[in-house]
Amino acid sequence: MSVTGKKWRMITWMATLLAMVLLSGCTTLRGTGDLGLVVERASGSVQVLENSHNTLLGSVTGLGDLSHATAVFSRDGRYAFVFGRDGGLSKVDLLTMQVVNRVIQAGNSIGGAISQDGRLLAVANYTPGGVRIFDTETLQMKLDLPALAADGKLSKVVGLEDAPGQSFVFSLFDAGEIWLLDVRDINQPKVQKWTQAGLQPYDGLVTPDGRYYLAGLFGEDGMTVLDLWHPEKGLRRILQGYGRGEAKLPVYKMPHLEGWAVAGNLVFLPAVGHHAVLVADLQNWQEVAHIPVHSQPVFAMVRPDNRQVWVNFAFPDNDTLQVIDIPTLKVIKAFRPGKGIMHMEFTAKGEEVWISLRDEDRVEVYRTDTFERVAALPASAPSGIFFASRAHRMGL
Amino acid sequence: MSVTGKKWRMITWMATLLAMVLLSGCTTLRGTGDLGLVVERASGSVQVLENSHNTLLGSVTGLGDLSHATAVFSRDGRYAFVFGRDGGLSKVDLLTMQVVNRVIQAGNSIGGAISQDGRLLAVANYTPGGVRIFDTETLQMKLDLPALAADGKLSKVVGLEDAPGQSFVFSLFDAGEIWLLDVRDINQPKVQKWTQAGLQPYDGLVTPDGRYYLAGLFGEDGMTVLDLWHPEKGLRRILQGYGRGEAKLPVYKMPHLEGWAVAGNLVFLPAVGHHAVLVADLQNWQEVAHIPVHSQPVFAMVRPDNRQVWVNFAFPDNDTLQVIDIPTLKVIKAFRPGKGIMHMEFTAKGEEVWISLRDEDRVEVYRTDTFERVAALPASAPSGIFFASRAHRMGL
Repeated sequence: MSVTGKKWRMITWMATLLAMVLLSGCTTLRGTGDLGLVVERASGSVQVLENSHNTLLGSVTGLGDLSHATAVFSRDGRYAFVFGRDGGLSKVDLLTMQVVNRVIQAGNSIGGAISQDGRLLAVANYTPGGVRIFDTETLQMKLDLPALAADGKLSKVVGLEDAPGQSFVFSLFDAGEIWLLDVRDINQPKVQKWTQAGLQPYDGLVTPDGRYYLAGLFGEDGMTVLDLWHPEKGLRRILQGYGRGEAKLPVYKMPHLEGWAVAGNLVFLPAVGHHAVLVADLQNWQEVAHIPVHSQPVFAMVRPDNRQVWVNFAFPDNDTLQVIDIPTLKVIKAFRPGKGIMHMEFTAKGEEVWISLRDEDRVEVYRTDTFERVAALPASAPSGIFFASRAHRMGL
Repeated sequence: MSVTGKKWRMITWMATLLAMVLLSGCTTLRGTGDLGLVVERASGSVQVLENSHNTLLGSVTGLGDLSHATAVFSRDGRYAFVFGRDGGLSKVDLLTMQVVNRVIQAGNSIGGAISQDGRLLAVANYTPGGVRIFDTETLQMKLDLPALAADGKLSKVVGLEDAPGQSFVFSLFDAGEIWLLDVRDINQPKVQKWTQAGLQPYDGLVTPDGRYYLAGLFGEDGMTVLDLWHPEKGLRRILQGYGRGEAKLPVYKMPHLEGWAVAGNLVFLPAVGHHAVLVADLQNWQEVAHIPVHSQPVFAMVRPDNRQVWVNFAFPDNDTLQVIDIPTLKVIKAFRPGKGIMHMEFTAKGEEVWISLRDEDRVEVYRTDTFERVAALPASAPSGIFFASRAHRMGL
């Protein structure tokens, strides 16, 4: 063989090796604990972010209809599972910034959750009404559970959350039921059902310790609690008539319940159709406070160190944020970052918060102690912001 | 230029690129949220682990004296900072499994913490008694704070924890003091000091919400609390005389206080020199229960979903584990995994627990609901086990 032939062999070998290495995505070697994403609802894309230096790393497109989209994260923090409104379920690799798998699993979907062990995803569907469960590795469907209510009709499913014991818990909007689904053995799922959960449960939350499931009601002033340590005790109605006879206002945007509601004994909940954040005591479920706020609250989120609750509002007051001081239960700060505040996300230890300003096409980052703005980043009609550190918490 | 010359240029270029790519460690592209490490105390090494499939990924050596070693994690989960007993502070890259930086920062050290924003490390030193603070990027020293107590002497520092507001809080063993160090501006650190913290504070914990600092006392039956929301209220002594007049036993191994002590209102604490786990109510600090256990507890760790407390014991009973059921405050399980149980670490959502069995040269993984053993892995005299998900929690 000639010398030139050897050289060509070497070139070929090196090129092959190089291609393999490049395809493995090695340029993005980094930790995933400070990653996250911003949903760009209008363009069906997400921007991958990192919150150590507050930068956007790149964009991932092709995710379909992302209005009301949410995301959960694999336990290694590498993959985001994005639930689209169009029933799309996409697996996004935050390191290579690629969609590595995607299924259209239903016609209309409202979010989902990841199991305690990280192996299963559950999606809450409006059409067809029910829950479908998928393998996180392959996105293969493992269970199809129609939400066939006691009235014989399929119901929309809302407020789907993960719970301890490899369970999911969710509400049936039309039927007013709460179901607890145990998937320890996915081939023999166990379902417990409670009727009489109240009129139109519209969203739910699981407390950070995984003990309580709370369903917010749209059709009446009140909420419903299920104690997951004592499911045999059934449902409990709390905060009944919290509007205190005041005329309920037209609801411009449904509030959201999130797993960031609890600080010590207290749980903070946006009232529906009233300008108030409700505070209940987890030990007896009595109302502790009814905090007047600027407008109709959408999110009321507890800072991870339990010192503050940040509140945003429905249109036309979605340019304003208020901050409640938990020790005094008073609003201590109000400011107007800009138009179309859709979501907030605290860093895991709470020193900073990211805010999406849909109508300003940007996200902003604030220090939570001084309220100083530390970053402003361009994004196209941003809505939800989700950090990979959610992988390590229940009910998110 | 000849064709051969061009080929050689191409070969050289490719070889350079390949070397760069390989040096960047691309073969280990993966998420870091499920990583962790096992300390191998006798050999000065750690094993890198992943808890999604429960495997050991590789070993990192050259970390010095690792008796009583602990670790904290960078906010991206990529780096572990290992605090050695010999004053060594090592930065370990969990992806490339290399020591990327290492300083001998003191003569005798007892652990450390990482700041709320992830930019600073604080180390508690016995010799010279004090706290030193380092930049997480470079391990450059940013602050040297001798623990010069009110009695004019240097004291050993113990129970150093991170707290909200970019603070660290710690105790002076010899002097019986508690200090709160605010490093928002590292060039102008602020220190608040409390004397009369009790006789020989030996370890401390910060509650998961960052509100309370608790110091355990070795020199007397009792503990001391500092409310970080109200430092102006000073120290409060709790659980005084918890031994109830029983003769205190010789203490074979000091208990450890950890940030996994709180479940709802209840805080679970190992008694010193008594066969008991103490339970206090966070709202009024009264003793709620005094749970008799098998022997002298070392760790009493709350499962992340607040349902159980797992307890290990001092020599010669360090072959046994007990599990306390929190709803009933009773021991519901006791078993003997093997000799030399040194530490336990729960997965972030609590479905599994890793246990180190020093004298059996292995670590084991158990399901926490069925107590079934799901893995047994070889390790050389393993002691501490630390998961990278700690990066997202306060007081760990």
